[in-house]
Amino acid sequence: MTIDPALLDRFAAIVGAAHALRQADDIAPYQEEPRGLFGGVTPLVLRPGSVDEVSRIMALASETGTPIVPQGGNTGLVGGQMPDENGEEIVLSLSRLNRIREIDTSSNTATVEAGVVLQVLQEAAAEKDRLFPLALGSQGSCQIGGNLSSNAGGVGALAYGTARDLCLGVEVVLPTGEVFDDLRKLKKDNTGYDLKDLFVGGEGTLGIITAAVVRLFPMPRGRELAWVALSSPEDALALFAMANDRAGGGLTAFELIERTPLAFTLAHVPGTSDPLAEAHPWYVMLEISSGRSAEDARASMEDLLTGAYEAGLVADAAIAQNETQAASFRHLRESMSEAQRPEGGSIKHDISVPVAAIPAFIARAGEAVQAVSPGCRVVCFGHMGDGNLHYNISQPVGADKRDYLALYRPMNDAVHAIVRDLGGSFSAEHGIGRMKRDELIATQPAIATDLMRRVKRAFDPAGIMNPGKVI
Amino acid sequence: MTIDPALLDRFAAIVGAAHALRQADDIAPYQEEPRGLFGGVTPLVLRPGSVDEVSRIMALASETGTPIVPQGGNTGLVGGQMPDENGEEIVLSLSRLNRIREIDTSSNTATVEAGVVLQVLQEAAAEKDRLFPLALGSQGSCQIGGNLSSNAGGVGALAYGTARDLCLGVEVVLPTGEVFDDLRKLKKDNTGYDLKDLFVGGEGTLGIITAAVVRLFPMPRGRELAWVALSSPEDALALFAMANDRAGGGLTAFELIERTPLAFTLAHVPGTSDPLAEAHPWYVMLEISSGRSAEDARASMEDLLTGAYEAGLVADAAIAQNETQAASFRHLRESMSEAQRPEGGSIKHDISVPVAAIPAFIARAGEAVQAVSPGCRVVCFGHMGDGNLHYNISQPVGADKRDYLALYRPMNDAVHAIVRDLGGSFSAEHGIGRMKRDELIATQPAIATDLMRRVKRAFDPAGIMNPGKVI
Repeated sequence: MTIDPALLDRFAAIVGAAHALRQADDIAPYQEEPRGLFGGVTPLVLRPGSVDEVSRIMALASETGTPIVPQGGNTGLVGGQMPDENGEEIVLSLSRLNRIREIDTSSNTATVEAGVVLQVLQEAAAEKDRLFPLALGSQGSCQIGGNLSSNAGGVGALAYGTARDLCLGVEVVLPTGEVFDDLRKLKKDNTGYDLKDLFVGGEGTLGIITAAVVRLFPMPRGRELAWVALSSPEDALALFAMANDRAGGGLTAFELIERTPLAFTLAHVPGTSDPLAEAHPWYVMLEISSGRSAEDARASMEDLLTGAYEAGLVADAAIAQNETQAASFRHLRESMSEAQRPEGGSIKHDISVPVAAIPAFIARAGEAVQAVSPGCRVVCFGHMGDGNLHYNISQPVGADKRDYLALYRPMNDAVHAIVRDLGGSFSAEHGIGRMKRDELIATQPAIATDLMRRVKRAFDPAGIMNPGKVI
Repeated sequence: MTIDPALLDRFAAIVGAAHALRQADDIAPYQEEPRGLFGGVTPLVLRPGSVDEVSRIMALASETGTPIVPQGGNTGLVGGQMPDENGEEIVLSLSRLNRIREIDTSSNTATVEAGVVLQVLQEAAAEKDRLFPLALGSQGSCQIGGNLSSNAGGVGALAYGTARDLCLGVEVVLPTGEVFDDLRKLKKDNTGYDLKDLFVGGEGTLGIITAAVVRLFPMPRGRELAWVALSSPEDALALFAMANDRAGGGLTAFELIERTPLAFTLAHVPGTSDPLAEAHPWYVMLEISSGRSAEDARASMEDLLTGAYEAGLVADAAIAQNETQAASFRHLRESMSEAQRPEGGSIKHDISVPVAAIPAFIARAGEAVQAVSPGCRVVCFGHMGDGNLHYNISQPVGADKRDYLALYRPMNDAVHAIVRDLGGSFSAEHGIGRMKRDELIATQPAIATDLMRRVKRAFDPAGIMNPGKVI
């Protein structure tokens, strides 16, 4: 089945021919996503230039029962931004809604349109001596609308919260085309149900976020980054407790890294080098920030590391001596996902458990994955301070990639069973999209699925809003 | 109309006669609320002792179409916990569900039942060297379930967030009696729609929160409290910017106080005294905390106040020299609501505006209220750092209280019009309840009301869950 060309013309007329992509070459980038797992087909990509155009598109979609797939920077990892294979869904790109409407340094807020690239917002805030703390590997191309729709996390979530925590208000175009203007700058507002947080993390299935008010923070006066070697996840947990105790709110990153992802990175990413002289089984990359001064941050970091040495938690450590070195530490961490590619197939997990359960998870999952694929290599790294690990499993050396990837489902099942047992989540920060929808429905309590379906029906009774995603 | 006594017997049998209150004297405390504005009538108060009993009550309510009004510590200020006047609503008290199920010092979480009194949780956390930062004037009697259902704010919200921000997971009994167990300890969890935040702030209209996982924080090693005199709200805003800039996340309270509420407190609350030698038009009570040490907090406070003196923002200031003096400062602030009573009728507002708009709000509202009631006395105090003021208006000296309170509606209208114009909220932290329902519906965009009604219908199609509240 296909959409009637006359109907495509009506949609195209709303945005104008120049912004209605119908040629295969133009459409191609909107049909493919980073992992190449969820390609789809669409006859039309609409690039509206105003909220009013988004509204008119949805009104026409509602009138004609046409499914719409919103798309931001197309960096999502679960296929939430992809049309399906049937060619009956229209992609609506938010990229042209890329205006920063306001930066309010008194209220510490920014009002931004959905298509603003994350890094652009970070830089605009920095120009006003403010921090927008959301930071992701994809920040050069991902967009705020997608960050909010998927409730993105990242390194900064430890101290500043996820995208949801950073969002004070939203402007949403509903499936009917109605505009829900809830662009508030208020930290406290108890006027009825929290509708905002249905759209944030709703993955575009309840409406399209076209703009948002997000929180800004004073720019830290000092930041210290350390690369610390440890012998076990248990020691990392003890170090985390000590860091919380001594640095309190100043602890702004706490990333756990196993040797394997570092080794892959050193082997495959040009220009990288090991921050420490010898190899160690585990590392933590931790950041301490101070609102007061660079000296204050340095003193706090030294106090922590001294305590950690004395407690026997730390085998070796390097504090970045300047911004260049700090950038090189961060680059190591950010390259770890990509550095897996030359090592063959990778089966990925984006899990969270209560922080205290991290060592137990690593021990149990380490055994479970060997039972699924003997010789597979655990590539464990992530936001330990949030209980969130990217627990990726690279194929055994010399294995056939296709054969290995055929184990995706049993591997996921084995790991996620442990996650469930520990009270965790099998989608900590990437969302559900197409990838995890069946598993969500299969594993969560029936009442949760029922409640989510009720919400979906209440907001999108015709089912035209990013169908087949989440629920 | 009344409920059939045989049906009351069936409800009573679920909890047992000892916990089913049917005598007028026993019921009375559950029918009256702190301000005496929203008295109602109920034939039966149920005090279930387990989640299972709550579930069976709701199943029977659902089967028989009987409206249920959940009630916690009965400290709410908008009538959300009150039955109506018709005697057809049963009150369900959560007070006996008062177990702290777990305090997890590794994950920094507490799992608590709805009926746990806020102060009891604060103290249990402190025993484990952890901070539960929610702090309210009513903390000696209000309960966690009510705090979450009304998304309570308070002084600590500035640094640690509102009740919503502090809540990681909930256990909810739905109107049907089904139990939605979402008691997660996870900071990052993107498995579908954010259902939790519908119940948090839902004021018991979508389901009954029976337990929750809340976040704990490392206990600060040092806290410094200062009472600072200023000449204007503009100077307070400049001081707030400076405090954010210099203390960053260490700024844990920033309360704005006009002279009038302090004068009322000094006049009417025995044992109070002015922290400063002379009277000043405005004050800020601010707290700086340090995760590191008492000396660190003190140095940070002195650095800030020195800077503020040099900038000409501060006329005088007292730093509490010990915990007794700090407690006396806090007592002044907490007594301000009560200290209004001897001054006659008070028309209250619980508003928020963007922080930057606080001075404009105070200037404009100050004129507007005089137009409604010449000679009325503005009693302005509140959580300025959150943009949230308790903007109360005491009657003119010598006026008739009843005549004055007849102006409640026009006074509210005048103040709330300014709030709307400034992009603010007319219910910052107390909620909607019965008190503000009509105004919510009258003043918010129709699409917001429509969306809230859709949510209400999706969760409570029979309309038995705390009817007549919120929406």
